[in-house]
Amino acid sequence: MKILNHFPSDDGFYMPAEFSAHFGCILIWPHRRDSWQFGAYAAQRAFVQLIRLISESEKVIVCARFDDYDNARSALPSQVRVVEMSSDDSWARDVAPTFVTNGQCIRGIDWGFNAWGGLYDGLYFPWDKDNKMARKLCDLLDKDCYNMRHFILEGGSVHSDGEGTILTTEECLLSPGRNPDMSKDDIEDMLCRTLGAKKVIWLKRGIYLDETNGHVDNICAFTSPGEVVLAWTDDKNDPQYEISKECLDILESSEDAMGRKIKVHKLLLPKPVYLTESDCQGLDRFNDEPTRHPGDRLAASYVNFYIANKTVIVPQFGDENDKKALELLSTLFPTRKVAGLISNDALLSKDLLIGGGNIHCLTQQIPIF
Amino acid sequence: MKILNHFPSDDGFYMPAEFSAHFGCILIWPHRRDSWQFGAYAAQRAFVQLIRLISESEKVIVCARFDDYDNARSALPSQVRVVEMSSDDSWARDVAPTFVTNGQCIRGIDWGFNAWGGLYDGLYFPWDKDNKMARKLCDLLDKDCYNMRHFILEGGSVHSDGEGTILTTEECLLSPGRNPDMSKDDIEDMLCRTLGAKKVIWLKRGIYLDETNGHVDNICAFTSPGEVVLAWTDDKNDPQYEISKECLDILESSEDAMGRKIKVHKLLLPKPVYLTESDCQGLDRFNDEPTRHPGDRLAASYVNFYIANKTVIVPQFGDENDKKALELLSTLFPTRKVAGLISNDALLSKDLLIGGGNIHCLTQQIPIF
Repeated sequence: MKILNHFPSDDGFYMPAEFSAHFGCILIWPHRRDSWQFGAYAAQRAFVQLIRLISESEKVIVCARFDDYDNARSALPSQVRVVEMSSDDSWARDVAPTFVTNGQCIRGIDWGFNAWGGLYDGLYFPWDKDNKMARKLCDLLDKDCYNMRHFILEGGSVHSDGEGTILTTEECLLSPGRNPDMSKDDIEDMLCRTLGAKKVIWLKRGIYLDETNGHVDNICAFTSPGEVVLAWTDDKNDPQYEISKECLDILESSEDAMGRKIKVHKLLLPKPVYLTESDCQGLDRFNDEPTRHPGDRLAASYVNFYIANKTVIVPQFGDENDKKALELLSTLFPTRKVAGLISNDALLSKDLLIGGGNIHCLTQQIPIF
Repeated sequence: MKILNHFPSDDGFYMPAEFSAHFGCILIWPHRRDSWQFGAYAAQRAFVQLIRLISESEKVIVCARFDDYDNARSALPSQVRVVEMSSDDSWARDVAPTFVTNGQCIRGIDWGFNAWGGLYDGLYFPWDKDNKMARKLCDLLDKDCYNMRHFILEGGSVHSDGEGTILTTEECLLSPGRNPDMSKDDIEDMLCRTLGAKKVIWLKRGIYLDETNGHVDNICAFTSPGEVVLAWTDDKNDPQYEISKECLDILESSEDAMGRKIKVHKLLLPKPVYLTESDCQGLDRFNDEPTRHPGDRLAASYVNFYIANKTVIVPQFGDENDKKALELLSTLFPTRKVAGLISNDALLSKDLLIGGGNIHCLTQQIPIF
């Protein structure tokens, strides 16, 4: 693995869209006992089902800590590769490399990671193991690695259409816990140089109370070049309404890098999902404080789906909109099976959501080239 | 990775010779402070040179603990892959899988490992991280894995000619710390079933005072089918003489699996190598005891070479026989460069030998198929 200290765009590399062909997908076996219930066993059950679905259509690599390797290995299908790697948490989207391509080979970008805000408003300390994962994953895959550790970014805060357009949010990328010495223009320039983009569409905010400072991947996602789904509610009394409406207005008044108007599909949110007393059981305390409280509203959104080669895997919350989400995504991904993450009626998505994110946050695709 | 609970020979798999084509080589970054001087920094210097030589002709994968990854990565050439993996020590020959092939694909064997004798006369406790490495390396390489953990064996205790013949020693394989409930016949049967062999040539003992209970790979090695080098001394006052003579007699009266007489090339040993006061400096204590003492005789032998695709890499001890060893091996490996492990006149082999083994013990080849 060569460690490269210049920009991917200098070499003609860019970030392909998630709906382009994948070699595989990276996940990190959950273990954080203050994030996931019952020593992470509830989340692990959801992971097994999620990984089964992904592994039907692409290679899956699961990073497991030394202490977790044996259990992860025995829980997962044999076609899945489990590799030992230390981590602080399990959000591969944010700590694995963002892969870029020149159409012939891929390389990884090793962003700086500070647990979504560092000492300003980050979610845990320390985060050194997470911050080292991207480079190690490039090494594991035998891919060269762009060293961008001086720039704090999580993969969940950007979406690419693969044709020069990046979607992101101001709430996240301009938050004081990331790169406080850079202006919006500086950051836009950085995104273009690193992701090989020509145009950045800046949404204002992400999902209401999303603790990642509003990652774009929970509120809006490309389904094809020029088309997005946007998390939506018609309930004007919900604080989410104003946020989604603001996004809609920006999107409908934007052109992408190719000069197309953006077509927006509203993906209706579930009714607000709250933590119950029972949900909070089995979560260890962090620095002597509970990490979650009964009554907390979670950042539940169907937009947090993952686009595997043959399947789109979608969160499900036991809500009347669960089915509508699957139906809309089926029309938008006509060549793929659209599957809800559910098993024997268990709402696995909530077991994941308690940790602070969902399917998309837990996955990172490896493009085929 | 499939975990297979039957014998490789049931599937037509066998262990190819080391001089067959390699995909690459596995090593483990040294870290054990009671085995290697100065927190293992002296051994690391030797590793870098060794790995440089191997990586000239094949892929090298270096397993590094979490705490060592950054330093190993920066010390090693970019074409070398460094992967995070926990270990108790650094003897890849003994803890990495023994690979077997059916001529089309390879699989690994995951032997039981108990630190060369377990609680009977093993060299350290615990050894659980080492014991888990073989399976994890198969997973890393995406190769299926034969589960032979119920049988204690280290890769350094067997050599294969790739044509059905296995070389081993009674001193090691019949030692009470390995498989005390198995007879010699049971063990021979196990070697044939696991390594796809037809014939086991049993030498009696390995190098004098070799703390592995006399691993064969320090005293005798195939250089081609039907030909071996044997560590030799003409000094009849050296306890090594009787050991080597006994091996010679056995080899010269043996046929290999193909019915060939074995041709034995005597590889003259260096004069006995002893630890000095200075050599013992910088070794941490183990369980409050020194692991090495000034005046200890080390198991120095030129037979502990590694056969890379284009290069044979040979220990050097600052002895008059250093050059003779290179010359003999050059005639026996006419298509390969034969290189001593030496850099700027530093006797790197002794830095390694202090840990209890040498080049061959530190490497494990991955056959190309």
